[in-house]
Amino acid sequence: MTRVFTDISISLDGFVAGPDPSLEDPLGVGGMQLHEWAFRLEAWRRPHGIEGGETGPESDLVERTLAATGAVVMGRRMFSGGSGGWDDDPNANGWWGDEPPFRVPVFVVTHHAREPLELQGTTFAFVTEGVEAAVERARAAAGGRDVSVAGGASVVRGCLGLGLLDELQVHVAPVLLGAGTPLFAGVEPGRLELLETVAAPEATHVRYRVVR
Amino acid sequence: MTRVFTDISISLDGFVAGPDPSLEDPLGVGGMQLHEWAFRLEAWRRPHGIEGGETGPESDLVERTLAATGAVVMGRRMFSGGSGGWDDDPNANGWWGDEPPFRVPVFVVTHHAREPLELQGTTFAFVTEGVEAAVERARAAAGGRDVSVAGGASVVRGCLGLGLLDELQVHVAPVLLGAGTPLFAGVEPGRLELLETVAAPEATHVRYRVVR
Repeated sequence: MTRVFTDISISLDGFVAGPDPSLEDPLGVGGMQLHEWAFRLEAWRRPHGIEGGETGPESDLVERTLAATGAVVMGRRMFSGGSGGWDDDPNANGWWGDEPPFRVPVFVVTHHAREPLELQGTTFAFVTEGVEAAVERARAAAGGRDVSVAGGASVVRGCLGLGLLDELQVHVAPVLLGAGTPLFAGVEPGRLELLETVAAPEATHVRYRVVR
Repeated sequence: MTRVFTDISISLDGFVAGPDPSLEDPLGVGGMQLHEWAFRLEAWRRPHGIEGGETGPESDLVERTLAATGAVVMGRRMFSGGSGGWDDDPNANGWWGDEPPFRVPVFVVTHHAREPLELQGTTFAFVTEGVEAAVERARAAAGGRDVSVAGGASVVRGCLGLGLLDELQVHVAPVLLGAGTPLFAGVEPGRLELLETVAAPEATHVRYRVVR
C-alpha cells in the first residue's frame, strides 16, 4: 500500500523557512538552520555525492525514508525558487545541478506547463492540474512504494486539506525563527496518532498518522 | 541555581488554546485535547486529588517537574479567565476550587491590584508591576528551587523576550487545532539546545535550554 507522507523540517515555532526568502537565500533568514541536522548524516550525504557522515538512528531514519520513497511531489518554488514562466527562471533545472539526489520520479506543481526534464536518473514532470493530480501521478509512478510530499508549505497544506496525506513526518529543529513561512497556518483541525519519535540534539523527528 | 522554565502544552501547529476561548470553555474549541496526556498520569492526578493513574516515564517527568518547582508565574487569564476588576470576576479565586494543586507560591500577573489569597497551602500573590517583577518575586520565593512559567502564551513570550527563561519545556500534543492562541507568535529568533525528550503516544515532551 502506497503511503503519502510529508517529510519536512520546521522550527519549534513552526516555520519551514525564515523571513525574506530570495533566489540567493531560498530558505530565508535563518532557514538553513532547519536543515543542519541532515547535512551531517551519512544517509543524507551519500545521495548528495558527499562522503562520510554520521551513522546511527537519525541516519537510519533518513535511509528508511529514502528507501521507502518511490516518487516525490514538490511545489515550483521548492524546485527552482522561481514563479513565472520557465524562460525567465534562472534556475529552471532546479537547485540540484546535473545530478539531483532523488533518483525517483519527481512531480513539480506549477502553473506553467513544460516538457519533462531528465537529469541523471531523476525525471521531473511538471503538473499544471494542481496538487491532487500531482499526488495521483506520483502514486501511479511510485511502483508500490511511498509518495513523499517534500514541500513547500502550501503544497503540504493543500495535500492535508484534500485528505491526501496518510502520514506527517516532521523534523523539528531546536530553533525559533520568529517569522517566515509557517507550515500549518490555516489547516483544518484534526487528530494525529504518533507512530515514531527519534530524538537527537539536532532535531526531534516525529512521525504521525493523519486520523481521518 | 534557580532555573526559570516554561511548562506548557501545545498542539503540533503551535497553539496553547483553540479558537473562541470563554469562561465556559477557557481552552477554546478543541483546546482540552492539549492536556489529555496529563490527566491520565499518576503524578498529575495525585496533587489534583484524583486517585490512580499511569506510572512510567511521563509520570516521572511530571513528578520531577513538580518536585523541582518552588514557585509559579502565570497570567491573569490563566488564573481566572477574567480580565477586568476583581469584583466583577466570577472566578476570582481561580479555577481550582478550595484546594489548588500548586502548594507553592503562585505569582499572578495582572493589571488589577489585590491582596494575596491563601487557599490550603497555595498562596496567590497578584503582581501589577509586570512579568519581570513577577519572575523576580517568584525567584526569591522559590527557596533555591525552580520557577515554572505556566502560561498563558503572552506571559511566556514576555519572559522569552526579556531573556528571563533558562529552559522551555513543551508538551506537543498529537493534534492540529488550525486556529487559536499561538505560543510563539512574534518571538525573537533564537537558538535552543535540546536537553531531554520523552516520547509517548499522547504527547512528545521536549525540554530545551534557551541559548543566550
